Amino acid sequence: MDNKYKNFNYMMNPKSVAIIGASNNPDKVGHVILQNYIDAGYAGKLYPVNIKDEVSILNIKAYKSVVDIKNNIDLAVIAVPAEIVPNVVDECGKSKVKSIIIVSGGFAEIGAVELQDNVGAIAKKYNIPVLGPNCLGVMDPRTRVDTLFLPAFKIDKPKIGGVSFASQSGAVGSSVLDMISGEGFGLSKFISYGNAIDLDEVDILNYLGNDKDTKVIVFYIEGVKRGRAFMESAKRVSMKKPIVVAKGGRTNAGSKAAHSHTASLAGSYEAYKAVFKQSGIIQANSLGEILNFSKIFDTQPPLYGNKIAIITNGGGTGVMATDALYDNKLELPELSDSAINKLKKVMPPIVNVRLPLDMAGDADDKRFSAALDVMMNEDNIDAIMVIALFQTPGADSRVAATLIHYGTMMKKPLVVVSPGGSYTQAHKNMMESSGIPVYSSPEDAARALAVLHKYTEFKVNK
Amino acid sequence: MDNKYKNFNYMMNPKSVAIIGASNNPDKVGHVILQNYIDAGYAGKLYPVNIKDEVSILNIKAYKSVVDIKNNIDLAVIAVPAEIVPNVVDECGKSKVKSIIIVSGGFAEIGAVELQDNVGAIAKKYNIPVLGPNCLGVMDPRTRVDTLFLPAFKIDKPKIGGVSFASQSGAVGSSVLDMISGEGFGLSKFISYGNAIDLDEVDILNYLGNDKDTKVIVFYIEGVKRGRAFMESAKRVSMKKPIVVAKGGRTNAGSKAAHSHTASLAGSYEAYKAVFKQSGIIQANSLGEILNFSKIFDTQPPLYGNKIAIITNGGGTGVMATDALYDNKLELPELSDSAINKLKKVMPPIVNVRLPLDMAGDADDKRFSAALDVMMNEDNIDAIMVIALFQTPGADSRVAATLIHYGTMMKKPLVVVSPGGSYTQAHKNMMESSGIPVYSSPEDAARALAVLHKYTEFKVNK
Repeated sequence: MDNKYKNFNYMMNPKSVAIIGASNNPDKVGHVILQNYIDAGYAGKLYPVNIKDEVSILNIKAYKSVVDIKNNIDLAVIAVPAEIVPNVVDECGKSKVKSIIIVSGGFAEIGAVELQDNVGAIAKKYNIPVLGPNCLGVMDPRTRVDTLFLPAFKIDKPKIGGVSFASQSGAVGSSVLDMISGEGFGLSKFISYGNAIDLDEVDILNYLGNDKDTKVIVFYIEGVKRGRAFMESAKRVSMKKPIVVAKGGRTNAGSKAAHSHTASLAGSYEAYKAVFKQSGIIQANSLGEILNFSKIFDTQPPLYGNKIAIITNGGGTGVMATDALYDNKLELPELSDSAINKLKKVMPPIVNVRLPLDMAGDADDKRFSAALDVMMNEDNIDAIMVIALFQTPGADSRVAATLIHYGTMMKKPLVVVSPGGSYTQAHKNMMESSGIPVYSSPEDAARALAVLHKYTEFKVNK
Repeated sequence: MDNKYKNFNYMMNPKSVAIIGASNNPDKVGHVILQNYIDAGYAGKLYPVNIKDEVSILNIKAYKSVVDIKNNIDLAVIAVPAEIVPNVVDECGKSKVKSIIIVSGGFAEIGAVELQDNVGAIAKKYNIPVLGPNCLGVMDPRTRVDTLFLPAFKIDKPKIGGVSFASQSGAVGSSVLDMISGEGFGLSKFISYGNAIDLDEVDILNYLGNDKDTKVIVFYIEGVKRGRAFMESAKRVSMKKPIVVAKGGRTNAGSKAAHSHTASLAGSYEAYKAVFKQSGIIQANSLGEILNFSKIFDTQPPLYGNKIAIITNGGGTGVMATDALYDNKLELPELSDSAINKLKKVMPPIVNVRLPLDMAGDADDKRFSAALDVMMNEDNIDAIMVIALFQTPGADSRVAATLIHYGTMMKKPLVVVSPGGSYTQAHKNMMESSGIPVYSSPEDAARALAVLHKYTEFKVNK
């Protein structure tokens, strides 16, 4: 357990937080951050700091400088103009602050490299770990730490869960957080690390790799500074938990844009792909894939083979799902004779007993249950994709309950596909809150199963 | 205007509808259909028909047989067991019914080919056009015709609009309808044609091609019976309006599943792809693409070139969007010197004036407006992708209003990307209800722009 790992803990679980740049003016970043801590019910001690001699900020006693606070400070969140950040960091050093997050922008990303280097040197002198600058900081729903300076009404906050997300880009970070909130899975840690003056991808990977609450690690990365160290860490961490990376700057033009954005030297995408492959990293190529992959890794057991059974109450979606399996190098197995015989006994005569199993539009919970009962015990089936169309006459919350029952009990992966509107959405929420991943198209589900299989193979062959 | 075209009109805009198999029992399909007509406020005359001598069904005078109705019947919806369908169709013929929709299943799809052929022969004898069997029938939000036998609370109904959707699979059809309801665009006609005993893809294509309310035609198809005729129609119709086809059974296994589902001989996918290409048909490869492509074709002008400007208030999403453009053979142009000079005057110094234009997280409506004002007049920009992240401090409904203003006024295509939760969703709804297509990821938006460009090129080069 290295020093930096310990110090992420000061950021994620601080007993006391100084917010430097806190303000009574609601337009100021420091106001929003302090307000978010208060709204979240943060249990530790809060110290608003503002150079203008305020008596109190948001009804909490304020300080003119961090040096005036005579108690321990585990975390200082700095939200002041870039040019005074060096002085503020120096004061933090004098006050023996344990960790610093600099949310302020105006450093290397706009060419102010010297200013940034100066801040880094000061922090290093005092041996204080720094996240940022030019970042959103961290969020941990368990400890209610939340340094995001986004108005609470503009962004939905995720539930407590097992997915940790680290993003070089604050914008991608906050968009994904907001999207995650609509999904069934929850967040372990969010880390927006911006210009990475000190704590970088490697530190974050090591920290999240050891974090017991993190089941899946997701990154948005434009460029990795310490490529070799990242790969070595990734290889080790991948054996414990899946790492999903969305890489910005895959194309030449994207890479140029990334350089302009975070001053990242994106490097050759071919080189990144090779690193990802060697270290078991799963690539996500869109915002949608970040969510789709996170939820299967968060909830489902390993997928040892590529034989996927499809069960549906709508024939056409079974056809689309079959295409989607083969598009993703997965296969639809043949049912064994014993499975066919068992299914023939329980399915009505109009059901053609083969895969994809189209149980017809009037299929109810009993028919879903009977099909799952047979298939979960078939050796030739590695995972099950259930397409439950809730528009149909037979589908209701008992079908959702049945899928939850089998999905929880089964040792194989189970994914559900339920495209639709508000009635469907309600059932999706029921299932996802019980750990069943639900997708809005067979294509998304097949792609998620494919990466689950890929990751399983990486671990098995290692 | 051929006979069949006229007779789709009897289905879509009937002055009188007989529902054969109507029932007071809410579990019966005929009950749900009648109830849906009543709930929709259908303005024409309704005739419930049930062989059990009911006095009234859902408080409407009932008939024992369609022959007992002495008035004109424009449309008979048949929802009775398969084996009595031949007799019912014969009675419809005797009563000079103008058109028939058979929703009942139990025909070729379960091997009862002879029964199906018999029904077809009877209808042909009387020269009545038939939709189905084994289908959901039609929906037209303008005339409030709705033969779907799905409980109203299970499926959201789309608004009135310009997208028509025809589906061989009822399940795919109802799922997509339900999904469309959550989008900004509306429906012109929905046609579920099932086993296509009479009216088939070619008839539907001709009808929708001539329908003035239809701006975009979308199909889910497993197999086309009259391939040559379909291609000829498609070539003609494509010159007037875009045709999007999702093809079920693209893979060998999917093709086998399709055969088992609708008895479709899917044929070689390579042959289909060639037909699609020659006739300007745009392929959608997932449920998501059906929605994503529909909304750009429904709202945006032609895209004559492949140069796309990206404007964003979040740098990382600009990088992802740039990658997505090049993944889809689109390009990010260079800004002209005059554009750069104009933008430098209106953007704050921290904004690096180049494409993708990252206007920073505090960009407000004025900054969006200034950027759009410059770019809409640039010759080297063929379309604009605006990434508006509503999590950011500067983004609010004025930004949405600005995008609506420019999107409405501009002669070039404009698409918006806004990933997020409830606050974002509210702004997406505002923009989409004003005809601005909004996507939840840069990848989806880039793909939609790519097909818009592809379709434009098809028309231009023809």
